[in-house]
Amino acid sequence: MPGDVLAITIKKLNLNRDWAISDKGLVDRAMTTDYAAKNKQDWSDTRWHLDLEKGMATLEKPSEAMKDFAVPVHPMLGCVGVAPGFGNAAMGSGDSGYFGGNMDFNQIAERTTLYLGVSQPGALLYVGDGHALQGDGELNGNALETSMDIDFSVEVLQKKSIDTPRAENADFLMAIALSGSLDSAFSRATSELATWLQNDYKLSSSDVAAVLGTSIQYSVSEVADRNVGVVATISTKALATLKPATPAK
Amino acid sequence: MPGDVLAITIKKLNLNRDWAISDKGLVDRAMTTDYAAKNKQDWSDTRWHLDLEKGMATLEKPSEAMKDFAVPVHPMLGCVGVAPGFGNAAMGSGDSGYFGGNMDFNQIAERTTLYLGVSQPGALLYVGDGHALQGDGELNGNALETSMDIDFSVEVLQKKSIDTPRAENADFLMAIALSGSLDSAFSRATSELATWLQNDYKLSSSDVAAVLGTSIQYSVSEVADRNVGVVATISTKALATLKPATPAK
Amino acid sequence: MPGDVLAITIKKLNLNRDWAISDKGLVDRAMTTDYAAKNKQDWSDTRWHLDLEKGMATLEKPSEAMKDFAVPVHPMLGCVGVAPGFGNAAMGSGDSGYFGGNMDFNQIAERTTLYLGVSQPGALLYVGDGHALQGDGELNGNALETSMDIDFSVEVLQKKSIDTPRAENADFLMAIALSGSLDSAFSRATSELATWLQNDYKLSSSDVAAVLGTSIQYSVSEVADRNVGVVATISTKALATLKPATPAK
Amino acid sequence: MPGDVLAITIKKLNLNRDWAISDKGLVDRAMTTDYAAKNKQDWSDTRWHLDLEKGMATLEKPSEAMKDFAVPVHPMLGCVGVAPGFGNAAMGSGDSGYFGGNMDFNQIAERTTLYLGVSQPGALLYVGDGHALQGDGELNGNALETSMDIDFSVEVLQKKSIDTPRAENADFLMAIALSGSLDSAFSRATSELATWLQNDYKLSSSDVAAVLGTSIQYSVSEVADRNVGVVATISTKALATLKPATPAK
Repeated sequence: MPGDVLAITIKKLNLNRDWAISDKGLVDRAMTTDYAAKNKQDWSDTRWHLDLEKGMATLEKPSEAMKDFAVPVHPMLGCVGVAPGFGNAAMGSGDSGYFGGNMDFNQIAERTTLYLGVSQPGALLYVGDGHALQGDGELNGNALETSMDIDFSVEVLQKKSIDTPRAENADFLMAIALSGSLDSAFSRATSELATWLQNDYKLSSSDVAAVLGTSIQYSVSEVADRNVGVVATISTKALATLKPATPAK
Repeated sequence: MPGDVLAITIKKLNLNRDWAISDKGLVDRAMTTDYAAKNKQDWSDTRWHLDLEKGMATLEKPSEAMKDFAVPVHPMLGCVGVAPGFGNAAMGSGDSGYFGGNMDFNQIAERTTLYLGVSQPGALLYVGDGHALQGDGELNGNALETSMDIDFSVEVLQKKSIDTPRAENADFLMAIALSGSLDSAFSRATSELATWLQNDYKLSSSDVAAVLGTSIQYSVSEVADRNVGVVATISTKALATLKPATPAK
Repeated sequence: MPGDVLAITIKKLNLNRDWAISDKGLVDRAMTTDYAAKNKQDWSDTRWHLDLEKGMATLEKPSEAMKDFAVPVHPMLGCVGVAPGFGNAAMGSGDSGYFGGNMDFNQIAERTTLYLGVSQPGALLYVGDGHALQGDGELNGNALETSMDIDFSVEVLQKKSIDTPRAENADFLMAIALSGSLDSAFSRATSELATWLQNDYKLSSSDVAAVLGTSIQYSVSEVADRNVGVVATISTKALATLKPATPAK
Repeated sequence: MPGDVLAITIKKLNLNRDWAISDKGLVDRAMTTDYAAKNKQDWSDTRWHLDLEKGMATLEKPSEAMKDFAVPVHPMLGCVGVAPGFGNAAMGSGDSGYFGGNMDFNQIAERTTLYLGVSQPGALLYVGDGHALQGDGELNGNALETSMDIDFSVEVLQKKSIDTPRAENADFLMAIALSGSLDSAFSRATSELATWLQNDYKLSSSDVAAVLGTSIQYSVSEVADRNVGVVATISTKALATLKPATPAK
């Protein structure tokens, strides 16, 4: 129900096809006007071969310079979302926001739990947009788009309040903010992580400032869609000496 | 001379004092208006103890919740810069830009080489602003400001052209863009790294898009000063299968 | 049909009710974190009296300081849009973009023609969100929201291509860009107006630069919703000495 | 002395030369990457003829399309500033900020008073950068740069505090914010005008919201230099019914 939070744990993401599709250009936000004027972008498709045995991706038709280029696969889900609360609007699945959605964050992968605030009765969870791998930012507009088998579980958490999606695995706590500019997403991601630590570790505003000032890490999850994403991360190691406020029962 | 590039290699950064000074607040850019309205920031100083033996920093007067909080030191230089080319203006050392300066990037540390384009005869290199450690963004306005012994070497590279500072170590190539907004710094960092790979590995625009789209990583170096910094990074491992265009002699 | 442009001319906007509803706060984007920390915003409703005879709006329950405050009405439509082309998504009417929508631009008023690119067969034009008046930016989240009688006409223009909404009246040409940040909307509005003049007056890139550099005016239409709006305007007077490329038949 | 405010009233700006220099391109911030890729900018100089009798500017060597293009002169000062308070840094005169400087705002013209906060003993006022005229934004990097005779007076106001430059004439109060992005300048300009009205008219936060929500106007003063400028304006007419808090003695 609205007010609840879904905890979606991704247990397994198994690639089940030996190819993926991507694009050859860089999205507008990745280029200065000067770079764009000097480098006409080619927006045709490109196909990658996925060697599922070795776990490596290679271009099917590489240029001479790229003929040995290979990159390890790291399966992830571009989309995990619930229905947003904008009246009865039926948004497309390409959008993102406080409800998650098309976040294209490459740490939404195996052994990670994503937390999404529920806005509509039933939550209306959806997942999809399998990526064999993706650099930060999803700079080509598409990542290595492919098919995969997914195993995940969902838990409903009551009496929990979050403003943006959060994720967690053995190593990190991550606050994921989606907004119309990186500057706006940056302040939202930081404020969400600060609030998370204040509540879960009973820290004061100054305590949180000391923890984040020494230990926060940022990444840019994506710049390819309407909203961009900034992720504020802290390692569980950095928090090891703090005492959780609410011990699990 | 103008047109040259300085390669500054940081060999050793040895902390030589057992304390550091920092601040208790979060800078404006890290907070939403909502978080700022709910959390009055305390801008008094805070002192950290540096255990140089164990390599750990702890608060001298921690709150109860923070009494066991400890974070590993990671000495870095907040400032490495050359004189900018703005006529004869004598800028303060708190500023940053294409000339480097007060970049506050926590990977300007031991065994890293920083490349800065020269704008004035003699380059007028300066270093300083030692930080015992700093999270991404320098969110407290100050990091753990302290004293250190520095050992570095400088080489002059001729006929090389760069638009923003670059850094390199055994693991990563990094393009560091400083600008008035994260969105602007993001496109500059990406375009600089793209140009770097195009020139040094003779890649086409589409080749570069494939390399960056699969393998780029971003971080936010700092948001505490007039310019903010975004760093576009690629691992040397990801480049291992590409052939450098200009073999070292 | 997709590819056509609708020209919607607003002939009459007659207020038909003697009151309007608005809000008492300033939206987040209008405040610095410092201002927000010092001024807690009151988000309750406020009611305005509309004197339809005199054409003035006054607060129904003003504070002592505001008891004589009166502002002239200037009826406008907050929303004029067509269906966007995002697959079959059914967006809410609070959004805006290249399809127009909830633009909240106070020059969408009598004797103005708005041009919107069509994305879906039938265009699916909608109008609404009547404002008795509104300052730039729609800073209260709501303007003076009220009811009105509307008289407008619609013409279909074929073989015309626009990237963002355009508007025109006897005095001005206006390119209206909606985007996730003011910086992004600014470059889109300027580029759209530049393209408009290039095409309609057969100007070169340098000619356009001379016209805009001397004569462009900007305003910020709104910052209250997901997208913000920047409007690039040029007066018809400034264009009087140029020759339209395609004389009307 | 620091803490004082200078009130600089521009009495006369008389053009004294019959030509001006400008540029043929649009600055980066005015272009989308798409527009930049399609329109190579020509950055050579262009010369304008100034007809001081008729008060009109025309291109000396216009293209055929521009041969009748003429625009009225409107003399203004691009630079009015005091020394900033950054330690002993000697900034170039091309920069801008809370100290004014190279603001390139086309309403810094005859019969306007500019208010600048003093940071250094003696204030160290400077003026210059005469523009025969300039569109909003200074889109060509240079306006119509020329020479002029200036008549101005300066008054020192004590016990007054301002965060960004303010300007005032018979028709308008203007808060001028200079920052690294339009979004940041927008919130600063609005917050400064809000604070101005709160203090000078003893308005509450909600009162100010009602005044600004109905009556504020924005313009973009410049996007050509390191800082961009947003100006928040309110007409003296809109304030006519409010009572100034501190009647002049």
